[in-house]
Amino acid sequence: MNLAVLSFQLAIYPKIAIMKTLTEYLIMQTKAEREIVNITGEVDAAVKKSGVKEGIVLVNAMHITASVFINDEESGLKQDFLTWLEKLAPAKPDYHHHQTGESNADAHLKRTIMGREVVVAITKGALDLGPWEQIFYGEFDGQRKKRVLVKVIGE
Amino acid sequence: MNLAVLSFQLAIYPKIAIMKTLTEYLIMQTKAEREIVNITGEVDAAVKKSGVKEGIVLVNAMHITASVFINDEESGLKQDFLTWLEKLAPAKPDYHHHQTGESNADAHLKRTIMGREVVVAITKGALDLGPWEQIFYGEFDGQRKKRVLVKVIGE
Amino acid sequence: MNLAVLSFQLAIYPKIAIMKTLTEYLIMQTKAEREIVNITGEVDAAVKKSGVKEGIVLVNAMHITASVFINDEESGLKQDFLTWLEKLAPAKPDYHHHQTGESNADAHLKRTIMGREVVVAITKGALDLGPWEQIFYGEFDGQRKKRVLVKVIGE
Repeated sequence: MNLAVLSFQLAIYPKIAIMKTLTEYLIMQTKAEREIVNITGEVDAAVKKSGVKEGIVLVNAMHITASVFINDEESGLKQDFLTWLEKLAPAKPDYHHHQTGESNADAHLKRTIMGREVVVAITKGALDLGPWEQIFYGEFDGQRKKRVLVKVIGE
Repeated sequence: MNLAVLSFQLAIYPKIAIMKTLTEYLIMQTKAEREIVNITGEVDAAVKKSGVKEGIVLVNAMHITASVFINDEESGLKQDFLTWLEKLAPAKPDYHHHQTGESNADAHLKRTIMGREVVVAITKGALDLGPWEQIFYGEFDGQRKKRVLVKVIGE
Repeated sequence: MNLAVLSFQLAIYPKIAIMKTLTEYLIMQTKAEREIVNITGEVDAAVKKSGVKEGIVLVNAMHITASVFINDEESGLKQDFLTWLEKLAPAKPDYHHHQTGESNADAHLKRTIMGREVVVAITKGALDLGPWEQIFYGEFDGQRKKRVLVKVIGE
């Protein structure tokens, strides 16, 4: 009778979806002041390492003059993004922020257009991306160390 | 004594918040090249189907020239969005991306302003939206099949 | 033997990562029509209250003329944001949305640039923010009560 109770337990346990999380920090240091870097491989590796089969992964810049976004891996388009951002949020001396001694107000604005973060679905243990979706780090005030946070949550 | 153990187990199980997930793909094919489509009903149906009572739902375009965003269901405003996007990210021939044979660089930029995804809270088994919040698919290079991913995660 | 079964159960239970969620609504009422308010403290308090050690928190405006975003706590920069938004999405009479009797179409556009929501990682029981990251509520059609949703999910 005691053994019967025990086997009832063992039958139940595997049905419980146990929550898992993983936290990783990617170190980014671009050569150029403004640069777009493909980080899909790094995010993919974190998801595989986590063992999460169904869930989501949050990927965000931890700095306010950088961005994480999803678009197409095409060099001409990356150039178009930088040109376009310069038009919408130009580098210029007369920002109020520069009265603090800073000179990067435009980088704060550029990052706002591109976004701080992406949340990507994990399905059957892999990043559930569309055919052309690639994850990028957008640096708008670079040439120094910054971090990207990767947080996996799921079962 | 054995029965006492068994009833102890049954009393404990319902308190364990078991994680649930659901993945759905909505197929979108707009008649116009640029179009804004309300998908709140489809997302709501996925949430109900999942059985999740407390959690979140991620809704994202799986294509990089389309968007998922939240705003107001008002036809004039939807027209304003399209006019405004044309001003901020105009269709024109001289993008670098077009050297690949593509002609849709502006759609990549328009989608960037509108955003790739939304994350919406699920509370008491329903989408926890504000009074005017509606979920939209924004198409900027349409007239062909694309997908929207709906990922529910919670308990 | 019965006692042995019981202790086996007690040893297993603490290893199960039990999912927790918390939902809070912050009430916002700005004095100015357009204003940027730091809400990091309120979000931090909700995370601590939830008891979640590893997970994420979603923070979103529940109104479509307001925003939640992450940037730097610097008064000059906040002024720069408002000036910049006025240039990209100016208040003016001739929006189609205004044919409904509304006069706030520009606020819908401004909020779109700043974003509806942020998702922030929770690590070791605390908001996992970069050194300068602060969470803000951006109001673009204020002087009335609005709500911000804070949803914590994790273990």
